[in-house]
Amino acid sequence: MATLEAANVERCLTGIDGLDSILNGGIPRGNTTLLTGTCGTGKTSVGLEFIIHGADQGEVGLFIAATETPEKLTGSMIPYDFLTPKMLEDKIEFMHLEDFYKAAGIDLESEIDSKGVKSLIKAIRDEVKKKKAKRLVIDSITSICARLTTEDRIRDFISGLSDALAKVDCTALLVSEVPAGSDIYSPYGVEEAVSDGVVLLGNLERQGDLLRTLQVVKMRGTTHSRAKYIIDLTSAGVLLAPLLKGGE
Amino acid sequence: MATLEAANVERCLTGIDGLDSILNGGIPRGNTTLLTGTCGTGKTSVGLEFIIHGADQGEVGLFIAATETPEKLTGSMIPYDFLTPKMLEDKIEFMHLEDFYKAAGIDLESEIDSKGVKSLIKAIRDEVKKKKAKRLVIDSITSICARLTTEDRIRDFISGLSDALAKVDCTALLVSEVPAGSDIYSPYGVEEAVSDGVVLLGNLERQGDLLRTLQVVKMRGTTHSRAKYIIDLTSAGVLLAPLLKGGE
Amino acid sequence: MATLEAANVERCLTGIDGLDSILNGGIPRGNTTLLTGTCGTGKTSVGLEFIIHGADQGEVGLFIAATETPEKLTGSMIPYDFLTPKMLEDKIEFMHLEDFYKAAGIDLESEIDSKGVKSLIKAIRDEVKKKKAKRLVIDSITSICARLTTEDRIRDFISGLSDALAKVDCTALLVSEVPAGSDIYSPYGVEEAVSDGVVLLGNLERQGDLLRTLQVVKMRGTTHSRAKYIIDLTSAGVLLAPLLKGGE
Amino acid sequence: MATLEAANVERCLTGIDGLDSILNGGIPRGNTTLLTGTCGTGKTSVGLEFIIHGADQGEVGLFIAATETPEKLTGSMIPYDFLTPKMLEDKIEFMHLEDFYKAAGIDLESEIDSKGVKSLIKAIRDEVKKKKAKRLVIDSITSICARLTTEDRIRDFISGLSDALAKVDCTALLVSEVPAGSDIYSPYGVEEAVSDGVVLLGNLERQGDLLRTLQVVKMRGTTHSRAKYIIDLTSAGVLLAPLLKGGE
Amino acid sequence: MATLEAANVERCLTGIDGLDSILNGGIPRGNTTLLTGTCGTGKTSVGLEFIIHGADQGEVGLFIAATETPEKLTGSMIPYDFLTPKMLEDKIEFMHLEDFYKAAGIDLESEIDSKGVKSLIKAIRDEVKKKKAKRLVIDSITSICARLTTEDRIRDFISGLSDALAKVDCTALLVSEVPAGSDIYSPYGVEEAVSDGVVLLGNLERQGDLLRTLQVVKMRGTTHSRAKYIIDLTSAGVLLAPLLKGGE
Amino acid sequence: MATLEAANVERCLTGIDGLDSILNGGIPRGNTTLLTGTCGTGKTSVGLEFIIHGADQGEVGLFIAATETPEKLTGSMIPYDFLTPKMLEDKIEFMHLEDFYKAAGIDLESEIDSKGVKSLIKAIRDEVKKKKAKRLVIDSITSICARLTTEDRIRDFISGLSDALAKVDCTALLVSEVPAGSDIYSPYGVEEAVSDGVVLLGNLERQGDLLRTLQVVKMRGTTHSRAKYIIDLTSAGVLLAPLLKGGE
Repeated sequence: MATLEAANVERCLTGIDGLDSILNGGIPRGNTTLLTGTCGTGKTSVGLEFIIHGADQGEVGLFIAATETPEKLTGSMIPYDFLTPKMLEDKIEFMHLEDFYKAAGIDLESEIDSKGVKSLIKAIRDEVKKKKAKRLVIDSITSICARLTTEDRIRDFISGLSDALAKVDCTALLVSEVPAGSDIYSPYGVEEAVSDGVVLLGNLERQGDLLRTLQVVKMRGTTHSRAKYIIDLTSAGVLLAPLLKGGE
Repeated sequence: MATLEAANVERCLTGIDGLDSILNGGIPRGNTTLLTGTCGTGKTSVGLEFIIHGADQGEVGLFIAATETPEKLTGSMIPYDFLTPKMLEDKIEFMHLEDFYKAAGIDLESEIDSKGVKSLIKAIRDEVKKKKAKRLVIDSITSICARLTTEDRIRDFISGLSDALAKVDCTALLVSEVPAGSDIYSPYGVEEAVSDGVVLLGNLERQGDLLRTLQVVKMRGTTHSRAKYIIDLTSAGVLLAPLLKGGE
Repeated sequence: MATLEAANVERCLTGIDGLDSILNGGIPRGNTTLLTGTCGTGKTSVGLEFIIHGADQGEVGLFIAATETPEKLTGSMIPYDFLTPKMLEDKIEFMHLEDFYKAAGIDLESEIDSKGVKSLIKAIRDEVKKKKAKRLVIDSITSICARLTTEDRIRDFISGLSDALAKVDCTALLVSEVPAGSDIYSPYGVEEAVSDGVVLLGNLERQGDLLRTLQVVKMRGTTHSRAKYIIDLTSAGVLLAPLLKGGE
Repeated sequence: MATLEAANVERCLTGIDGLDSILNGGIPRGNTTLLTGTCGTGKTSVGLEFIIHGADQGEVGLFIAATETPEKLTGSMIPYDFLTPKMLEDKIEFMHLEDFYKAAGIDLESEIDSKGVKSLIKAIRDEVKKKKAKRLVIDSITSICARLTTEDRIRDFISGLSDALAKVDCTALLVSEVPAGSDIYSPYGVEEAVSDGVVLLGNLERQGDLLRTLQVVKMRGTTHSRAKYIIDLTSAGVLLAPLLKGGE
Repeated sequence: MATLEAANVERCLTGIDGLDSILNGGIPRGNTTLLTGTCGTGKTSVGLEFIIHGADQGEVGLFIAATETPEKLTGSMIPYDFLTPKMLEDKIEFMHLEDFYKAAGIDLESEIDSKGVKSLIKAIRDEVKKKKAKRLVIDSITSICARLTTEDRIRDFISGLSDALAKVDCTALLVSEVPAGSDIYSPYGVEEAVSDGVVLLGNLERQGDLLRTLQVVKMRGTTHSRAKYIIDLTSAGVLLAPLLKGGE
Repeated sequence: MATLEAANVERCLTGIDGLDSILNGGIPRGNTTLLTGTCGTGKTSVGLEFIIHGADQGEVGLFIAATETPEKLTGSMIPYDFLTPKMLEDKIEFMHLEDFYKAAGIDLESEIDSKGVKSLIKAIRDEVKKKKAKRLVIDSITSICARLTTEDRIRDFISGLSDALAKVDCTALLVSEVPAGSDIYSPYGVEEAVSDGVVLLGNLERQGDLLRTLQVVKMRGTTHSRAKYIIDLTSAGVLLAPLLKGGE
């Protein structure tokens, strides 16, 4: 029957100060986490900083953008104080999702079938292995999910990718775009169930101001706080502050 | 006409202290209970502990995972104080849902028809009998339900499985994944109606913190409390505390 | 033109103390009433007690279960103080819905057409006549409605059954399963309109506790209270208590 | 161009005391009014009383039931103090909707097309003319609307029927069944727009009690109160009381 | 490139006292305005008064009814103090929408295609030109929109009609029927976007009474108040009163 | 690997005083921003002023209208104090969306396929290059999105257009029409995710008055305030005022 594995899971430091404390030392290494929230809540910024802090710790990071070209992305980044040209050159790779569709032989005009799911996972894993990437961000998986068309394939894609990345010890953030005005965790409702973790970014309206919030809803392999924190996007990176009690 | 059966139903101790009290002595043995809640509410933890406490009482437990590989699952478990390698070896079996699809001759690419429903029930019951399992957790049935496609087949699957397990005296928890932002008990709305019991896990936001809650909504064959409890996932297991009155 | 019938309708005592008072003496005999509510609100318990109290008054009762086998049902009943083996043997009949599908020649794999509606009504009426049943519970009609597929056929089924039962002086409770998180009376929205009465079971959260409630929303042929009552499921049967005013 | 018609429209007294005051003297004769509300709000009782009071004033009334047989309907009526056998015999006609479908040559198994709409209107008008009916109740039109399947045909049916009845000076109440838990006026959302008037029956929960309310939302050809009234169904008929201000 | 047109747009006085003030002098002449609200909020009354006040100022008005026959409409009008038979004879034309369908060669049984959109616009414009109408009311466009079936055609119809009417200096009110229980501006959500203005009629429940309200949500070519006003339908016409502050 | 681009992005001054402060100096040049809100919230006015202020700064602006003809648009503009005929003649171009459909060879009767997406982007970019436009407003993209029919094509259209405009240094506002009664950012829920920025216009009801609000929800490449501001549309242009704290 089953065997008991080592209890002390190795951690991947996000580098975002407060977040690592919330997670009692970082994301369990190899976990695939859904980074979810509506537009403007800071998903891309958190993802970028996760990659940059990895580079600072000597880990190669792969950032796959679905929407923006790599040029536009780096051009529109907040100019972080701690980001050096050398980091970008040596440790950070920006790629476009389309490159992976091509590598997987996926036709850009039609839906992705079960075979395509497997090829796409393989294409991503191959690139991760080739680059020896220890961190991966896909910003976002929502357009991929839309093309998978069935809940089954979405489950297969996320859990298959998650298994593949766990085997090569790569910790991943999958950005999920939630439409404004809803309180769901993901557009298809299944992405959250098959991920190892869910980090929820949100908005909090307070006296006319729209604050950003962060909450770790779920993280397999560690205990963690589930409290809601206020986050601030600054050139010194993402800053977390506890939500003042009784404030709402 | 009908005959009157013994009134004192035998109980299956969940081993979760507070929960057994709520149920006036545990789940009526042979019941199939829906364990339902949104992502991050502790469904997998409650399911695992149900299996582990069974092992501690000498009962074989079968844990069928739909999403994670058995390796990943055991790797990402909270390291319980009371879990010994011997328990895992002798009494706990982790299997993957895919194995049952294969045993039932179900094609992984298409929906499951009425014949498939019967084969799948049979495959699960056969494994339960072979392993002499007295406890079963399926984490989760949501992907199965999605592939059944009609409410009728979902009813047939759950009530058929429930009947089959009752005959071999196996007590089961069927995990159901509910999308965030809804207050339903199950994605298809019928799972709850055909189960013998419903244990609802939820979230309660209190001053910025996101607490986990547990509530026994329904349990056939016993009277029970229907109050909402706060639960805490610790390395000493799931802990229940009454929700302070007037707190909301 | 029309003729005036006797104003004093004969009553069928439910045997549930408070409920008969609410109804000013019981359900008008021959009425078909929808017994509706979400999972765990006590629909099956109220239905069983209606049958058992009938047996106690010497009336034969037929309980048609859609989900559970008769064995499982009697096995998981709350052990009522007033239920004797003799009652069960002489006056109570548990049957499975599937038997009626078979008698009506309805294929278990497809939807039920207009012809099937008529055959199913006939099969139920024939059994009621054969057993000389004065009380009928169908727990539940929701799976039947799902297979009828159109609102028209649901209307035809319920009003046809209702007419047929009225002719043989049989009083019926049709259990309707409503998904959690909604405040509807029936899944298809028409069941309530064609029934002679609607008894609504519900939940009321009060300081963390989940109480059960009962309310007679509609009852043709009698005036009645429409107030909401708290109900308690005990081994002495269903107990009703008025909802304390100002409590919500 | 257009000509100015007489300003003082003749009124049809409903006989329901408060309602005639609300309407400043009754429903403008020839108007077709939607009588709408969820199950149990008293639609049938108001409709019956409208017919009975007409009979009392010497006007023939036609009551078309869609669900119940005329026998069941008269059997389950509240025994009104003012209803005499002679009224029923001479002035009140209960018929079943099915008879009109037959007269119009409408197949009971399929949807009603544009031709069917015209035949059905004609069948109803012919019966109204034949019986010299001055009042008509159809309880309910919801099953008819379901079979019309398009908004266009629903519009055509209601406005066509309304025109036809206006020509023979017949005042009509069309009962519309709204599913519980919604605050709409009609299931298809167009019935209300093409009717000359809308009388809304509703529920008002007050300290655990479920009161019935009545509100005239719209009435062409007269000014009227739009306030909400509490109604009570008694053997002396429908009684209206103003909703106590500040009570909610 | 573009040229600057005269800033002082000519105004069309609605004749409704308060409304002209809200609009700083009336509707900019040639604008096509959506007059929207649920059933019973006074859309037809406002539309009629707009036409009648135009007649009083010597302008021909065309009122196209979709539901009622012209006879029924004039028969069920509130008897306005200021309406003279001469006005009706000389300056006001009531027509039925069906006449325009016929003129446009549109089959009454099927949906309206792009060609039909153009023919219908032409038919309306031709009649407006022929009658030299300076005011137009279509009560309502909702049944037209239903038959257009796509958002694209609804956009094309309203913006095409709006352009055509602007060219002949005709100011139009298009009545839009919104189902009760929603807070939308139009059933298809696009009518409001392509109109030059939106006047929203609504209900306001205050201590059991259902008041009517009016609000100018949008009006191209003028600044205007967007406050909510209480309206009263009287035989002296529509009266506006400011909503008492702090009243809600 | 990636290279670090210049941190100080050049800004495009909107000319709307408060808005440029909120954005810490204007919109990052080359960004494509969604300007979104329900009907009547001032989208067209903000878009026009953005173009006019550009003209005032010597930049050519292209305004593509989907609904109104250029004549109607200029005719119904608020007469701005700072708008001179020379600006309109030299620097501002009003065009109709239909012209671009024609240039792109898109059939006006059918949906737009992937090839059409590319042709439409090219047609817009070609015109922008030809006119040397530095500012673009499309009022609105909602009808385009409706004709794209799939989320995929909407993503491709907006991100493709955004990339093409960035290359020619053109800053764009894409107007998005949201139906009243919803709190979404865009009708299809994806427009917001692929845009570089989102400016949300809204309504705020305060004591019966309907105020307009503006909020920068997201803007790539700059930090910005996310507070909600009250806006006023005047002949001196759009004026912003902070929402008084505690006012709601």
